[in-house]
Amino acid sequence: MKRYEDLSPSLRCIMTPGPVEVDPRVLRAMSYPVLGQFDPEFTELMNETMEMLRGLFATSNKWAYPVDGTSRSGIEAVMVSLIAPGDRVLIPVFGRFGHLLHEIAERCGAEVFTIEQTWGSVFPPEEVIAAIRSFKPDVVAMVHGETSTGRVQPLAEIGRACREQEALLIVDAVATIGGVPVETDAWMLDAVVGGTQKCLSIPSGMAPITYNDRAEAKLLKRKQVERGLRSGAGTASELPVVRSNYFDLGMLQDYWSPRRLNHHTEMTSMLYALREGLRLVLEEGLEARHDRHRFHERALIAGLTAMGLELYGDAESKLTVVTCVRIPAGIDGESVRSMLLGRFGIEIASSFGPLQGLIWRIGTMGFSCRENNVLRLLGALEAVLVRHGYAVAAGEGVQAALDVYESNVR
Amino acid sequence: MKRYEDLSPSLRCIMTPGPVEVDPRVLRAMSYPVLGQFDPEFTELMNETMEMLRGLFATSNKWAYPVDGTSRSGIEAVMVSLIAPGDRVLIPVFGRFGHLLHEIAERCGAEVFTIEQTWGSVFPPEEVIAAIRSFKPDVVAMVHGETSTGRVQPLAEIGRACREQEALLIVDAVATIGGVPVETDAWMLDAVVGGTQKCLSIPSGMAPITYNDRAEAKLLKRKQVERGLRSGAGTASELPVVRSNYFDLGMLQDYWSPRRLNHHTEMTSMLYALREGLRLVLEEGLEARHDRHRFHERALIAGLTAMGLELYGDAESKLTVVTCVRIPAGIDGESVRSMLLGRFGIEIASSFGPLQGLIWRIGTMGFSCRENNVLRLLGALEAVLVRHGYAVAAGEGVQAALDVYESNVR
Repeated sequence: MKRYEDLSPSLRCIMTPGPVEVDPRVLRAMSYPVLGQFDPEFTELMNETMEMLRGLFATSNKWAYPVDGTSRSGIEAVMVSLIAPGDRVLIPVFGRFGHLLHEIAERCGAEVFTIEQTWGSVFPPEEVIAAIRSFKPDVVAMVHGETSTGRVQPLAEIGRACREQEALLIVDAVATIGGVPVETDAWMLDAVVGGTQKCLSIPSGMAPITYNDRAEAKLLKRKQVERGLRSGAGTASELPVVRSNYFDLGMLQDYWSPRRLNHHTEMTSMLYALREGLRLVLEEGLEARHDRHRFHERALIAGLTAMGLELYGDAESKLTVVTCVRIPAGIDGESVRSMLLGRFGIEIASSFGPLQGLIWRIGTMGFSCRENNVLRLLGALEAVLVRHGYAVAAGEGVQAALDVYESNVR
Repeated sequence: MKRYEDLSPSLRCIMTPGPVEVDPRVLRAMSYPVLGQFDPEFTELMNETMEMLRGLFATSNKWAYPVDGTSRSGIEAVMVSLIAPGDRVLIPVFGRFGHLLHEIAERCGAEVFTIEQTWGSVFPPEEVIAAIRSFKPDVVAMVHGETSTGRVQPLAEIGRACREQEALLIVDAVATIGGVPVETDAWMLDAVVGGTQKCLSIPSGMAPITYNDRAEAKLLKRKQVERGLRSGAGTASELPVVRSNYFDLGMLQDYWSPRRLNHHTEMTSMLYALREGLRLVLEEGLEARHDRHRFHERALIAGLTAMGLELYGDAESKLTVVTCVRIPAGIDGESVRSMLLGRFGIEIASSFGPLQGLIWRIGTMGFSCRENNVLRLLGALEAVLVRHGYAVAAGEGVQAALDVYESNVR
C-alpha cells in the first residue's frame, strides 16, 4: 500500500479575499473532542451560536443559524427556499458573484431579470429602485461586497424600496460580514448570507444566515415535514414544496428550534470553530473591527501607491477588505503571484473573467488583516516586482505604510 | 455585552450510530493552519484524498471525492445530479432513511415507485429485482445500512440486475463505509455515498462519494458551465440542467479535476480531517477494520444477552455496527439514556417513528468501537437498569464480554 505522509501544511501569509488565515483560538476549538448532536451541552452551544449570530448580523430576527456547507450553500439555501418556481426575480449584477446569483435563481425555476453595471463600479441605488418599480419582482437578490471587482454596494435605499414594493430582498454578504458594516434590520434586508472563511477568519465550511418574519412567512407556505418523521399526510403547502431537502430552511429552522426535529447531523467541529470565531468578533466589537479593517486598508493603499502601483475601480465604491491592483504593463501577473508564494510564503489572488491577467486582488480580512502581514506583503511585493524588471523606488512602499501605522490615527 | 465562556466540551463515550468519537490524530489535523484553496500544497492534498477514497470505496472509478456538507448533502448531490425531472425512480424502503431517499427523489421531480419491507428486516434481493423488471426504473436508490433499524441490505444481486436492466443504482452507504464491506465495483454500484461521522470517525461535515462512467455519462448530458465563468452560451444539454448549483456533480468534478474550475471554496480543515481519517482506515486495512467491528459486536451482544436483554430485528440481516436492543417492559427508555449520559458520560441513541420508545440503538463504529468502551457501556447500563428496577444478575454482562475478549478469537 502507498504510504501517505503526515499532514504538515506550510505556514502561509494569506492575503487573498478568502480563505484567509485562521486565529489560533479557532484552530484550537476544532481540536476538541466532539459531542453528540442531541447532547444538551451541544444544543446549548447551538443556541449560543444563534445568539451571537444575531449580534453579528445586527438583527433582532428570530432566525440566525449556519447552513452546513460552504458559503454558496447558504446562498442556495436562501434562494431555493424563498424563490418558488415561476417567481419574478431581479438580479442587479456588478461582478462575478452577481452572475452566480443569476445562475442559482435560474436553477430554482425563477423568471430572472438582470440589470448590469460595468465592472469596477456599483449601482446608483435609484437605478435599482427604478428596475424594481418596472419589473415588480417577487424577490431581489444582490451581492453586497463583490470580491471579483473589490466593490461594495450601498443597500439601505434598496432595502426600503423592496419593502415598499413588497419584494423580498436577499443579500449575499459573504465577503463583508465581520469586516464592514452589514445592517440587517436598519437596511431592511429580508435575508442575509455570510461566509466564514473571509472576514470571520474561520475555515470554509459553514454559511451563517439570517432572515426575518417576512421571509419566514414565505417558507411556511412551502413547508413539509420529512417522510419518515411525519405522521399522516405532512403537506399542506400553499406554494410548491422547496426543491431541495438539504436546503429547505423550513426544515432547518425546526432543527435549530427547541423541537430539534432531526434533519442533518450538525457539523460539530465546524460549529465549535464558528462559535469561537464569533466570540472573537464580539470581544473585539463590531465597530472596532470595522475600524481596524479600514485602518489596515489605508496602510496597504499608501504602500501600494508609494510603489507606483495603480488601484482598479471607482474609489467611492471600494470594498475596504479587497484591494484590486492593476498589473503593470509588461509584467506577468501569474509569475509574480507564484514567486510571492514560492519564495515568500505569501498568497495574493488573481481574478475572474474580463479582469483575468489585468488585476491582482489583495485581501485584508479578519485575522489576516494585521500590521505585520501588510508590511510583509509590501516588502515582498517590491522585491518580486524588481525581479520582474519593474522599476520601484526601493523601500518606499513599506515606509509609506509605516507612516500610516506610526500616525496611529484610526 | 454577554460573556460567552471558553469552549470546554465534556469528554463523552459516544456509543450511538453517529456522530461518534473522533481519533485524536484527526482532531489534531483540524488544528493545523489553513492553506489557500488553489495553493499547490492544498490541491495535492485534494488529489491524495481522492486516491484514498478510491481505496475506501473499493473502486477504480475516476471520480471519488467529498461533497462539502453533511452526509445527506452527498445523497442529495448524487440524486439531484443523476435523477432528471420525470425520471422513473424505484426506492425499496426498509427503514427511516429509505423514506428520506423517497422524499429527496420526489423533490428532484422524479416519478417515484416504492416497495416497503417490514422494519427490522431487509429485502430478499429477488423481490427488488422483480420490482426493477416490472417498474423499469431509470434509477434505483437504496440504503445499504439502515441505522434506524440496524439492518444491512445485500446488494450484489441487485447491482447485477440494475446493470442488466440499464438502471442506475445509487447506494446510501453512509452508515456502512469503513465499518462493513462496501464493494462498489464488485457489486456494480453506479454511485455510492459515504458518511464521515460514523465508521470513519471524522466529524460530520463532508460526504465522500464515488460514481462510475455510466453515472458520469448522465451528468455530462446535463452539464452547464457556470455563468460568470463561461464564455458564450455555455449550455448544450441533452437533458434538463441540474436544479442545484451547489450539488451539480458535473461542476464539482471540474473543480476536483486538474482544471480546478472555481466552484465553492473547499473546506480546508474538514479536508485535513478527512485525509487523516482515511490514512487511519488504510493503515489499519479495510479487512482488519471490518473484522474489528465484528469482534466488538460479538462482545457487545454477549454482554447484552447475558444481562437478559433482547435484540431487535432479524438476526441474519443485522448490521454489525448498530445493535438495536428492546427496552424491557416497564422501563422508561429515555430516563435510562439520560442517566447514562448524566452520570456516566455515555451516550446511546433512541429511535425513530414506529420504534420510538421500543428500542435503544447502540453504535460500535470506528474509533468508538473498542474494548474499553464496550466494557464501560455494559457496566454502566447494568447499574442504570438496576436503578430503574430491572433485575439484572450482577456483573454478568461485563463478564460475558470479557470472555469474548479473552478468547481473542476474531
